[in-house]
Amino acid sequence: MSEIIGHQYIGGARSAAGDITLRSFDASTGDALPYTFRQATGAEVDAAAEAAAVAYPIFRALPASRRAEFLEAIATQLEALDADFISLVSRETALPAARIQGERLRTSNQMRLFAQVLRRGDFYGARIDRALPERQPLPRVDLRQYRIGVGPVAVFGASNFPLAFSTAGGDTAAALAAGCPVVFKAHSGHMATAEHVADAIIRAAEQTGMPKGVFNMIYGAGVGEALVKHPAIQAVGFTGSLKGGRALCDMAAARAQPIPVFAEMSSINPVVILPEALHLRGEKIASELAASVVLGCGQFCTNPGLVIGIRSPAFSAFTASLVGLMAEQPAQTMLNRGTLASYTKGVQALRAQPGIEHLAGGEQHGSQAQPQLFKADVSLLLDGNPLLQEEVFGPATVLVEVADAAELQGALHSLHGQLTATLIAEAGDLQQHASLLPLLEQKVGRVLFNGYPTGVEVCDAMVHGGPYPATSDARGTSVGSLAIERFLRPVCYQNCPDALLPEPLQNANPLGIARLVDGASTRDAL
Amino acid sequence: MSEIIGHQYIGGARSAAGDITLRSFDASTGDALPYTFRQATGAEVDAAAEAAAVAYPIFRALPASRRAEFLEAIATQLEALDADFISLVSRETALPAARIQGERLRTSNQMRLFAQVLRRGDFYGARIDRALPERQPLPRVDLRQYRIGVGPVAVFGASNFPLAFSTAGGDTAAALAAGCPVVFKAHSGHMATAEHVADAIIRAAEQTGMPKGVFNMIYGAGVGEALVKHPAIQAVGFTGSLKGGRALCDMAAARAQPIPVFAEMSSINPVVILPEALHLRGEKIASELAASVVLGCGQFCTNPGLVIGIRSPAFSAFTASLVGLMAEQPAQTMLNRGTLASYTKGVQALRAQPGIEHLAGGEQHGSQAQPQLFKADVSLLLDGNPLLQEEVFGPATVLVEVADAAELQGALHSLHGQLTATLIAEAGDLQQHASLLPLLEQKVGRVLFNGYPTGVEVCDAMVHGGPYPATSDARGTSVGSLAIERFLRPVCYQNCPDALLPEPLQNANPLGIARLVDGASTRDAL
Repeated sequence: MSEIIGHQYIGGARSAAGDITLRSFDASTGDALPYTFRQATGAEVDAAAEAAAVAYPIFRALPASRRAEFLEAIATQLEALDADFISLVSRETALPAARIQGERLRTSNQMRLFAQVLRRGDFYGARIDRALPERQPLPRVDLRQYRIGVGPVAVFGASNFPLAFSTAGGDTAAALAAGCPVVFKAHSGHMATAEHVADAIIRAAEQTGMPKGVFNMIYGAGVGEALVKHPAIQAVGFTGSLKGGRALCDMAAARAQPIPVFAEMSSINPVVILPEALHLRGEKIASELAASVVLGCGQFCTNPGLVIGIRSPAFSAFTASLVGLMAEQPAQTMLNRGTLASYTKGVQALRAQPGIEHLAGGEQHGSQAQPQLFKADVSLLLDGNPLLQEEVFGPATVLVEVADAAELQGALHSLHGQLTATLIAEAGDLQQHASLLPLLEQKVGRVLFNGYPTGVEVCDAMVHGGPYPATSDARGTSVGSLAIERFLRPVCYQNCPDALLPEPLQNANPLGIARLVDGASTRDAL
Repeated sequence: MSEIIGHQYIGGARSAAGDITLRSFDASTGDALPYTFRQATGAEVDAAAEAAAVAYPIFRALPASRRAEFLEAIATQLEALDADFISLVSRETALPAARIQGERLRTSNQMRLFAQVLRRGDFYGARIDRALPERQPLPRVDLRQYRIGVGPVAVFGASNFPLAFSTAGGDTAAALAAGCPVVFKAHSGHMATAEHVADAIIRAAEQTGMPKGVFNMIYGAGVGEALVKHPAIQAVGFTGSLKGGRALCDMAAARAQPIPVFAEMSSINPVVILPEALHLRGEKIASELAASVVLGCGQFCTNPGLVIGIRSPAFSAFTASLVGLMAEQPAQTMLNRGTLASYTKGVQALRAQPGIEHLAGGEQHGSQAQPQLFKADVSLLLDGNPLLQEEVFGPATVLVEVADAAELQGALHSLHGQLTATLIAEAGDLQQHASLLPLLEQKVGRVLFNGYPTGVEVCDAMVHGGPYPATSDARGTSVGSLAIERFLRPVCYQNCPDALLPEPLQNANPLGIARLVDGASTRDAL
């Protein structure tokens, strides 16, 4: 592995102009790791944004196939990182090695998926309306549209996916695929990991002849504000808390030139368990659900934080099973001390709320998170109590019992926007509760049937998004190939000579891509 | 024609709860027309947004073919409006009857274009990744994605297109096509026109069995703020001034749940005239350009407000021709007194600016707008003087002479975002100034060659958008079929039983649409 020096990555060089130093920690012991990172100065933040701006016209003008090679080279570099790297990521995050290896594969596959998207060419959204010189009352000019990257993108990584949602994660992959250079703000929870991954990206950039400044990275607390406000930055990707994401949105909206922020923030991911399923396999559901709640110490955006069922002896039996199972779950080490403090605070708030009963889970103490199970009176949901709308990030979930189908509808209606909603249901349940489906569709980005939301497949059809506060813009996804669209904008050419047109729009269709020509999709040359 | 009663349109009924009355005026004489409109009360604004919210789940669940029938019925109703209607629109806007007739055709064709989009089905963006139960290390679930309307949309119409960018204009058509009910704020400049068009929409809605509340309209000054802040509203379409658009963006961003605003605002639409073209056809260009500047009294978002050429005897001769032509252009009546006052103020500011020379145009007085030609020192552009970045809405344009190709590049680089940029050029010019093209592409939504930007074709390939301040979100267009995408968001189904899937995602592909299945586009059933 390369040596960790803790300097900023700016325009293909390293920079350490400031005096403030930062440390990374062993997540399990709390001990400082033997690395020092320099906080970026204001001038370094500017320089990073400007390096991205200089790279932009060069990078976006490269054929998409060249960008695909770059993404594939990043994937190869990530896969080549050795066991010391895996062990370092584990130390910084307390995530087990097997999880880190799986996440690395997901991250490199994600790069390869975007490379496929670039070769497939549908991201161009090529549309051609040919001239109609004889049209009455007025002739039609020749008009051709495709999509280009919006410009330099600032990316803020997540604590809980040190690889897949971080330095070389989904937002970075989508932005680079779109032709947008990136300035990445390293997450304070895994700066050593970030440095190794940044090195891998830089090696890939050099191997494939990318412009300097195609990828930049800065360290530091509070440097994100200057980054988001820099005039060169044209969009922001963020994964993290509602408070942090909303603050970035507000800054971006207040700029002289407002820019879009794609923030993936807070979701409690309701799971609705319907009667027939409960009757047939209540025990199994309780066991699967408990496993989903504590998976990865509950540190997933899609952790099931709310479980709703209709009052019945079967639901009471299910509740009893879940209480037993959750009481047995061991404490786990969280990503960092801040995460644990925040979980402890969230659990305390639930414990202190009248109308919420604590059903299972040891007293929260020490350096590990105790799994917790609560039960809330449905009136809290119906009355819009904010405690039931806010994610408690960690291994906790809240049961809600409703009286009947009408109250179930009301409870779901009262929810804010979510990344996911899950129906645990048999065929008869779905027939009887058919009206739930359109309601859930309005509330969420992904509706699951008889599964658990904690797995998020990286593919073309995934939506990891949803109405506010799940994300700041429901029209995007931060997982899956559609994520590229957040960083593209359409441009139209009118009566442009063929030789000057970008390749996707030329008559000969040299890229062989599908295009909408005079209202019909075709790969034919014109 | 139906009688004008001046009441709000809320949930399929009329409402006049308030006491404040408004009048519409004859744009040429300034006389009040014999109609009274009631300003919407706060409660009426709420009721209109809530009527749209009630209509939303019903409307969005209709097959796209039903929405297509609705749009076509609106088109037919618009085309059936009689000569009295044309004459009324003319009175309210001072636009000639032939222009109104042309604009009506454009408006009804726009509705029909969106109906085609709905039948074509690509707006669904259907994507299917089938389950891979044998995949290692983990099986893949079945994932299917399509797009749904975001919810009720507030639309603010433009003064300068009383039909095509107003009540039944592009934003309304795109929102309705997307499955989003609309609350339209009638423009104060043509309230009688708005009422007749709203009646046409309501007749079409009744004919085609649309839910009440699919289209609502309110009158009044200052009622827009309450509308944008209403929790039921999920997106905003706006065409108008930078000040007005930005105010709406700021309000929308400050909501508890921020929502997107698609505001089409300010553009000066630079026209670059290159040497060989100037040499070959300078006189013709001067004549075409003068015609474009004064067309419709310059009241177009795409009016060419900045003309740039390289210093040469040919450019001096062109300037002299343009001076002569602009001096001959007659004064014209503007859309309303507010527009004239704003034009007068803009012209005065240009006249008062050191470094800007007045080349042609009579003293601005009386009730008509005098066409004006100015010449600005390039230093003003290079130094970022705001006067050269802001649209003066009306028949005025500013010439800028640059020393050479490098200064041309610098001048264009200094421009903010634009709807359009135009190159008037011969083949040799384009070869010699090839570096202009990528620069212009970064600045604008549409690049024109040897044309004038004032015509905006309604088609699949059009982009009427561009970087700020041309619009508030460069990722959209407010003209052309791509406009529907502003009001759609993706939703994903995981392991959903086939019978419960929305039609676009069912195995049998009952709609016969193109879908991305396991990474390849196909219309086949699965």
